[in-house]
Parts: sequence; structure tokens; C-alpha cells
Amino acid sequence: MHLHHHPHHDGSELYSTAGSEPSVRNVRVRVPRAFGPLASVWVRVVVDAEPRYLPMHPIPSPLAGDLADWWEGAIELLNPVVGYRFLLNRLDAGALWLNPEGVDEVEPLDAADFRVTGAVPPPEWASGQIMYQVFPDRFARSVGAAARALPSWAIPAAWDDEVIHTGSDTPLQVFGGDLDGVRERLGHLVDLGVTLIYLTPFFPAGSNHRYDATTFDRVDPLLGGDEALIRLVQAAHQRGIRVIGDLTTNHTGDRHEWFRAALGDPSAPEGAFYYWNDDAHTDYVAWYGVPTLPKLDWNSPELRSRFIEGRESVVAKWLLPPFELDGWRIDVANMTGRHGDDDLNRLVQRSVRRTMQEVAPDTVLFAESTNDATRDFDGLGWQAPMSYSAFTRPLWHWLQRPAAQPEHHFGIPYAQTPQATAGEFVRAHRRFTGSFPWPVNQLVMNALDTHDTPRFRERADEQLQRVAAGLSFALPGTPVLFAGDEFGLRGALGEEARTPLPWGTVPELSGFYAELSRLRRGMPALRTGGLRWLHAGDDSLAFVRETTDQSVLVVASRGDDRIVIPDDAIGTPAAALLASGSLRALERLGVVEIEVSGPAFGVWMLGAERMPGDTPALAIQAASR
Amino acid sequence: MHLHHHPHHDGSELYSTAGSEPSVRNVRVRVPRAFGPLASVWVRVVVDAEPRYLPMHPIPSPLAGDLADWWEGAIELLNPVVGYRFLLNRLDAGALWLNPEGVDEVEPLDAADFRVTGAVPPPEWASGQIMYQVFPDRFARSVGAAARALPSWAIPAAWDDEVIHTGSDTPLQVFGGDLDGVRERLGHLVDLGVTLIYLTPFFPAGSNHRYDATTFDRVDPLLGGDEALIRLVQAAHQRGIRVIGDLTTNHTGDRHEWFRAALGDPSAPEGAFYYWNDDAHTDYVAWYGVPTLPKLDWNSPELRSRFIEGRESVVAKWLLPPFELDGWRIDVANMTGRHGDDDLNRLVQRSVRRTMQEVAPDTVLFAESTNDATRDFDGLGWQAPMSYSAFTRPLWHWLQRPAAQPEHHFGIPYAQTPQATAGEFVRAHRRFTGSFPWPVNQLVMNALDTHDTPRFRERADEQLQRVAAGLSFALPGTPVLFAGDEFGLRGALGEEARTPLPWGTVPELSGFYAELSRLRRGMPALRTGGLRWLHAGDDSLAFVRETTDQSVLVVASRGDDRIVIPDDAIGTPAAALLASGSLRALERLGVVEIEVSGPAFGVWMLGAERMPGDTPALAIQAASR
Repeated sequence: MHLHHHPHHDGSELYSTAGSEPSVRNVRVRVPRAFGPLASVWVRVVVDAEPRYLPMHPIPSPLAGDLADWWEGAIELLNPVVGYRFLLNRLDAGALWLNPEGVDEVEPLDAADFRVTGAVPPPEWASGQIMYQVFPDRFARSVGAAARALPSWAIPAAWDDEVIHTGSDTPLQVFGGDLDGVRERLGHLVDLGVTLIYLTPFFPAGSNHRYDATTFDRVDPLLGGDEALIRLVQAAHQRGIRVIGDLTTNHTGDRHEWFRAALGDPSAPEGAFYYWNDDAHTDYVAWYGVPTLPKLDWNSPELRSRFIEGRESVVAKWLLPPFELDGWRIDVANMTGRHGDDDLNRLVQRSVRRTMQEVAPDTVLFAESTNDATRDFDGLGWQAPMSYSAFTRPLWHWLQRPAAQPEHHFGIPYAQTPQATAGEFVRAHRRFTGSFPWPVNQLVMNALDTHDTPRFRERADEQLQRVAAGLSFALPGTPVLFAGDEFGLRGALGEEARTPLPWGTVPELSGFYAELSRLRRGMPALRTGGLRWLHAGDDSLAFVRETTDQSVLVVASRGDDRIVIPDDAIGTPAAALLASGSLRALERLGVVEIEVSGPAFGVWMLGAERMPGDTPALAIQAASR
Repeated sequence: MHLHHHPHHDGSELYSTAGSEPSVRNVRVRVPRAFGPLASVWVRVVVDAEPRYLPMHPIPSPLAGDLADWWEGAIELLNPVVGYRFLLNRLDAGALWLNPEGVDEVEPLDAADFRVTGAVPPPEWASGQIMYQVFPDRFARSVGAAARALPSWAIPAAWDDEVIHTGSDTPLQVFGGDLDGVRERLGHLVDLGVTLIYLTPFFPAGSNHRYDATTFDRVDPLLGGDEALIRLVQAAHQRGIRVIGDLTTNHTGDRHEWFRAALGDPSAPEGAFYYWNDDAHTDYVAWYGVPTLPKLDWNSPELRSRFIEGRESVVAKWLLPPFELDGWRIDVANMTGRHGDDDLNRLVQRSVRRTMQEVAPDTVLFAESTNDATRDFDGLGWQAPMSYSAFTRPLWHWLQRPAAQPEHHFGIPYAQTPQATAGEFVRAHRRFTGSFPWPVNQLVMNALDTHDTPRFRERADEQLQRVAAGLSFALPGTPVLFAGDEFGLRGALGEEARTPLPWGTVPELSGFYAELSRLRRGMPALRTGGLRWLHAGDDSLAFVRETTDQSVLVVASRGDDRIVIPDDAIGTPAAALLASGSLRALERLGVVEIEVSGPAFGVWMLGAERMPGDTPALAIQAASR
């Protein structure tokens, strides 16, 4: 069955609407005529872990000019998180189940259901952001930076020195980027269309990456101290850019003031903050056994109080004046609170979120979960995953050329770099995003690379980076640039990719990123619209993003291809909005054909109304830029 | 790819062995040569919600005469439940993931991983049982039964009266079967090869099904009271048959002594046992809104203490002398402890299990979870699911003829009775059993029907029932007869199927069940062996059950078919052990061909050594009985 013939549901406004009461959602399924006639459609809801089946009824399509059949049913949110899927009773064939991975004759697992919550959603601004990740030591140095004394552990580096990326000196090399350096370059970010800066940690630490904080109480003087953060956030806000920080809830540094107080002193109140292997509190549990990163024990009420609960907590302090950060990204969120028999993860997630909701409800909570994030991101705690299973890794496997030696895949010991089809990209994307509640799905970080990965560009050319970047802006979620992506920076390892930004050279891709930003900011369908897959072959994929008022067609390809889509699946392309590479959309009898030559990415506005005539002369050419 | 070319792992002794320390398991993968050469195999373990990859190394096959490649690796049980799967790096193609559903190019969800625990396993006897479900009111009446006065709600019925199966009288009709009636018929069970009786509730109640207990403190006098239970259990034990009872942890009856004390009296200690919609404790939450079944609130420590915790609890009382039941089946286990924002299910599961472990460790804990049981059955609480997703429903869909009107499918509103292939049966079975820890998988109840379903026979003939029964005895798990299956009883609804047993008529299938029982009890491979699928087509399926010392081939078909299996997948059929219908296993050059004519079920012992010669003259004919 072709994807464009598949029935579809997602959590977007077209498919999930407010019900008769706050606790009720109306959910809808769109069924293309080509799927065949249906006798009935039911929505299966799990209540207190027991399924219930609720009838759906036909409704007129909420999309102007749409010929598909639509069904609607009402579900009640009787548990904090409600899983649901659909039963499609076909007239001429057996029943099929519809869940986020598609249709199946065999009953799916509950774990793969769609999910909806009654939780307070993230602030409305959150779904419209273009994120830019800054690793402060490597972004830009202000004039003041040069005058600062380095800590004793630091190995000073000049801005154009080579990055040390192997061996024990790797975390010690300090290039001296600082927060005023970020502030001074805000114009660069405005030019790119960035609206949200994600700062990796700014607390004092024993390394250049600062994930081993020595305190959560002040900004590292090396970065300019508290005042520099206040200046940065204020200046960013003035330019319409928000700023979030980075917290380690899984561990602190071994030089952290809490850990120093606890180490070797079982009577210290901070003793309960960590896991110990001995009564003398000298032997401790650390993240992956790395001794600089002692693991936090969230059984401690005092730790919860100091760190995450209420107005006096670390979580609250930096969101309140005078700092006024716009949210947090949580490091190693998936391991947080989990150790041996302990699993306090949900408690921590929900406490952090509750505190944010209380003291600064206009903030957002991103969190790292490098692999399968579907179970932890239920919408009640962490609001948006920084993950790699749904987008980043499948993207690498589809678009990059293979490495001579298999490389960084978050520890996955591939013998060869995986080479995947667009179809496999789509399967991975559906599998690892489909069961997020929609508010989570709208924020999921779509990054080509981050401070923890090789640069995408290391194994792809500029055209392919444009295709990848296009997808990061066009799929549901938050498009992410890791600072330097716009310069086409390379680097085969995470640490090799943390190169200082080459100010003075031309950021070759900044025009394209600016264009993507403008497009995304101007098109509600790209920010909040549903995602309906139309095509997934070897080289190419196509999908629609759609709201009630707007539909756009997105095509991405790694090479020459021809994609044929029945025009009843999408309406008619009415205008090319953006293209990279060579694409032509031709309307033929009953179908839209998209001819792609070489790596290409294109976006079209879809018109509800048919263009006059139906000959190839009406072809829409999306110009290559 | 054919199933017999697939790499394989399960939790059985061949594939999961004790490691160097109690906290270590060695896990193995078998890779047929036809799968293609591998560069390396890794096992992916999730520790504190973060994946780790551990190398595997080639080992000689632990199966005599087996030509496949085997890989082994060691995993540490660092969390109570550890999820794992395998990464297969192929030499000439991309990597594949292996999880319980098979192989996939795309990363699977963690929820679908294999799982292993360090929990105390169920007693060894548990994996060898043949279960017989008795609904006491309908099984047999002792002489004493006639003399007993019926409760006021009861509608008396003679043994050969029609069962009332619709309307409000349905639960009130009492046929008067009793526990001495069961005791007097133990010979019938011995003849069938039954080793475990599962009694639906025996507590006093306000209905014939007794799921609305009025107390958990004594046996219903209608059934003969406490003494009759003691007599039954003792007599059963003398004949080598164990007995388990049935507890409702989700609710009590509305005439239960706890509920009577609580209703309308907010000062009663029992008030905290239930969920109330008002302060006066007159309006209460009930199971599915059925007012006779008020739902228990497990937040109450007093409830936990009286019901499930420690030697004085209900759970303990009936396992201890003088009653000495051999375990429990828990009703509505999936909903237990779950209501709105509350989810105390794991707490209840584990408390029940802990109590049993303390007071009567030689007992077993079955629990009902009618649909997807994979998430709740992690091996730490409930030990074995009474479920319908993995076996019963897929079996109906594959083997039964369609009903004119769609019938009971646990509320699934199919417009037509689903008609599935053997391939779909296998997919469902893998999906809904594969991620159980192996000790759970070994006990999972494989029932053709139960007191809650139509009779299998209602839409299948005797030959097809033999095929279905064969599978229930040959797949991993506990084969289950619902009393009367051996008589070929019918009934289109759950309640219609609760017919009194037709004593005096010939139980047409008792010989076949006895044969299945003997086979299973005599063959360790059928009791504890791994399950490796070889074939799943439209009409037929084939699999191997195997231990280190014994391999058997099982074939089931609903019609004529020819199954071809390379003999390197299984070795050579050396002896036909059991057959129903017509099957012939022929050895040809390099393959075993199985010719099936009509509905058939067959089991062969597999010889490690090749039979002399290789001509069809060596065909093994499994005689139809």
C-alpha cells in the first residue's frame, strides 16, 4: 500500500480538537478514498490499563477541497496519560489497526499507541522556535575575556589552535569564549533567523564543557559571571531571542560544593545527595564510572528541595529575575534518578516541571534522552526530547556517505556505517516520535549534529546539508543549529566538532538557514501542522504539513528521482515556497509528479483549489538557489 | 527472508545460561548459515535507561549436529528488570537488530526488547502443569449439594436446564455444583492428564460467578464451606494435582463485609478501602460502573495489611494449612490499583508476590490481563498472564470459521470476525509474548476458551479443536482446558459457555487431551524448551521446541499444505510422537518436506543424527488417530 493511500491521524489541530468538556478530546482519522470503503471506525482508549472502544462517526473533511473521508470520535482523559489507537473495519476486507507506525492486521502493543494528556501544554511560543546551540568556550571571545585568569586545570588555547580531541587533555583545553562574546554576536544569530539560544552549562566547573559543575549558584567567572548572563539574556530578549540553560540532574562535578561537603563526612547533610559504596562516604557511584561525575541520589528530600522544588531551588533561581532564562535543557535526563533498584525519574521530571510552572510558567523544559525517548516523554515532566533515534541518526544513515571506519553512533558498535533508505528514515521517525503526545512532538529537537556528535558535514556535501537542514525545519519539532553548522564546519568526533567559530570567514549556509527560518516563521503549517507521509522510497521522501487553513508539501531527496502522488492526496501545488537543488512539480492527469535531479529539498504551498487547466505547461519550477 | 533462516534468541536454557556470578547471565544467538556471514554480534543492554553494548563471541553450537553459528555474551543484571536485544553486523550487508519480533533494519523500541530479571523464579513444578479451569457452580454436584438451602438471590436450576445467558437473571441462576463435586470427579481429571485445577472464586458472593465476594474469610457454604475445600485440596494433592484459587484485587462485591462497614460511615476503618465520590461515603467508584463491584483503593495501608501483606492477610491464609492452596489467579489484575491519577499496580503485584514468597514459596501467581500484558508482567510481581492477545484471539482468527455476526472479542467491535493467516498468528504470538522474561513465558496461560469467552468449538469442528489444543500444549506456557472442552461443548457467549458438564456423555476429546498431556509431561523440550519458528504461511505453521538434550518439531495446519524446511534448520525427524489428522514428513535432498492433508497437528522427535539414506522411502508417517 502506498503511504499516500494510508489513513492518517496525529495529534495536531486537524486531528485532535477540544471536546465538549476540558477532559474530552475529539480525535479524527482521515481515510483516503483509495484505501477502500469502511464499515465503521472505532477509537480504542486504554483506561486504568483496560481497553475501551468508542464509536467514531463520519464528518465532512475540515480541509477545503479534500476528497478523503473523515471520522471523528470523543475520548475522555480519565488517566494522566491516555493511550489510543484506531480500529478500521473495512467493508471488503479484514479490520486494520492504525497506530503511529501505520496500519497492521495484527494487534499492536499498547506501548506503541498514540498518547494524549491533560497536562498544561508548553507556552505557545515554544512551538515556533529556531534553536541555536552554543558551547560557550568555543563560540566567541569578548574583549574582556582575554584579561581573565584561567583556573589551574586549564590548558590555554588561541582561537585558531587545533582542538585537542583525544586524550586526557581534551576537557582541559580552554579557548576562552564567553557570554559577552555571545552577546556581541547576536546580530549573527538574528541574521540566521535564530529565536532560541541553548547554552550548554555556564556554571563553574573543572572542564571546558562544564558538565561537571562545582556549584549551581553562580555563573563561571571565566564566562563573565552572573552579570554577563544577565546582559546576554537582556540583550537577546531585546532582539526577540530567548535563552535556555543546561542543568545536570544526573550528577554534579566531583568538585561541586555539595560533593565536597559530603565526601568523607557521613554526618554532612549533603551526604544523602549521592550514592556511596561505603559507610565512610569515600567511595561513590559515578556516571559511567567517571570519577569526576558523582551521581545524585534523588531519594534525598533535601536535595530535591535545594535543586528542583520551589522558588528557592536551583531550577527556579535562574528563571527568575535578574536572570530570567526562558527554560532549561536537562543533561542525561534519561538516567536521572535511576540507579539499580531506584527509579525516581518521573518524580524528578514532574517536580522540575511543577517548579517551573509555579515560578515561571512561560518557560520550556527540554531534556536529553539519546535513544528511545518515547517512554519517558509523556508530557507530564520533560516537555521536549533532545534525542537522536528519531531524526539525527536515521538522517545520517540516509544522507551521509559511509565512513571508511565506522564512527560515533552513540556507542552503537556498527561494523560499517549504516546506509539506509528514505523509507527506513521514515520508519524510524514514525517509530520514535509517533507515541509522543503532540505537544512533545511539536518541540522535539531536530538536530543535524550537536556538541556530542560529529558534524553532519563531515560526511556530506553542502547540497546534502541543505536537504538535511530543510528537513530539520520542515518536520514537526524544533530545528536546531549547532553553532558553526552555518559555516559548514566539520569534525569526525563530538569533541573534534567543538571547534571555535571561524569568525571572519563567510558562513556559507547562513543565507539558506535564514530562508528556512523565514519560511518556518511565516508558515503556521510548518510550526504546528500535522505530519502526513506521502512517499518514502530509497532516495526520496515526501510529506504534507497541514493545519485547517494551510497545507504545504515537502520533498527531500538525496539523488535523481521521480515521485508520483495522486492529487487527491494533496490538492495541487500552487506555489513554490523554497527550494534547494533542482525540483519540478508537474501536474498530470490526476497526479502530481515531482522530478528531482540530484540532492534537493523543496517546499510548495498547496492550493485547495485546482489550478486552471491540467497540462504539464502548468509545471511549477522550484528554482535552485 | 524465511523464518528458518532467521537468527534466534529466547530466554530458554539453550539461549540464556547462568553467568560467572549470580548477577550475570550469558545470552546466546543462533545464526543459521543461510543468514549470511557476520562480522560481529553485540548485545545491547539498557542500564538505568541508557544503552550499553557488550561484545559477543562465537561458541560451538550447544546442539549436537547443529551446523548454525552461535554467539555468546555476558550481561549484568544491574536493574531489577533488564531489557536487551542484539545487533548483528553482517559482512556483506547492513546491520540488523534482533528483538522478539524478529530482525529489523530500523532500531526497535525499547519496549519491545527481550527482558530478564534477577527475581526469584516460580517453583520448578510450575512450568510442567496442565491446567483445568473449574467454574464451581457448573462442574459437578455432590450428593450433599442438593440438601443445601439457596441464598435468597438465587434462581435454582436443574443440571440439564438451559443456561440463562442474557438479561439480569444471568448471574443469579444457580446449578449447585460444589467442591465435593469436584473432588468426586478427580478421576476424570487424572484421566485427562490434568495436574493443576484453577477454581474460579469460592468465596460467598451475590452471584453464581462469585467475582463479587461478600467476604474473603470463608468458603461459600453453597460450595460446601471450608471443610469441602480442605477435602478437595487434600484429595487432589494425593492424586498429584495442585489447586489454585481466584482473588479479586480490583474490587469486592457490594455486599462484602468491608464495603458494608464502609458504606455511609466515613468513620469506618474500611472507608479508606474504596474510592468515594462524596464525603458521606454513599457514592462510590465501581468496576466499569457496575454497582455490585466497588473498586478497591490500594492507597490504604490497612487494606494492604488485611488483604495482601504478611501471614495474617487473605493472600496468605488460603495458602497455609489447613487449606494449602498452591497459588492464586488474580482477577482484573491489569486494572488493580489503577484509577484516574493513581497507579499502585506494581506495589500491589509485588506485595502479593512477596507475601506468597514469605509464607508459601512453593506457590504460583497467575493474573488476568486480557489484552497486552507485556508491560505489567515483568517477572517481579504477577508470574504468569491469563491473557488473550498472544494465543486465544489470534488462534480464533486463524482457525475458526467466521461467524455470521461478529461475536465476543473482549469488546473489540469488529464488523466481521477477523480471518487471519498462520503468519499473523505467529506475529501476534511473538509480539505479545516475546518481551516477557522467560519464566513468565513458560507459564503464560494458553487457553482455547475460558469462562469469559465463547467456546472455541462453537465455530470449529473437532479436527480444528485438536489442532488448537495441540498448539496450547506445544507452545511455551501452561496448556489450559476450560472444564467441558474435552466434551466438545459449545456456546457463543462467555455466559452461554458456562454450561453444566454433561456427565454421562462421552468426553470425545479426552483421549486426545490425555495423549497431549502424556507427551508434554514426558518431553522436557515441550515444558521448558526454547521456541524457534520455522514456518508461518497462510494455512500452516511449524516450529521447534528445544533444550540442550532434546528437540521436537511441531506442525499445525488448518488445511492442505506442503511445508519445506532445510534440514540444517532442524536436523532430521527421527520419530513421530503424536499426530492428529494426516501428516507425512519426507526427507529429500537437504530439506524436510511435510505434506499435510486437511486440519492436522503433528509432533516429531528430531534426531541429531541423520537417518541413513535420503530417499522418500524413509518418510515418517504420523498416523492419524
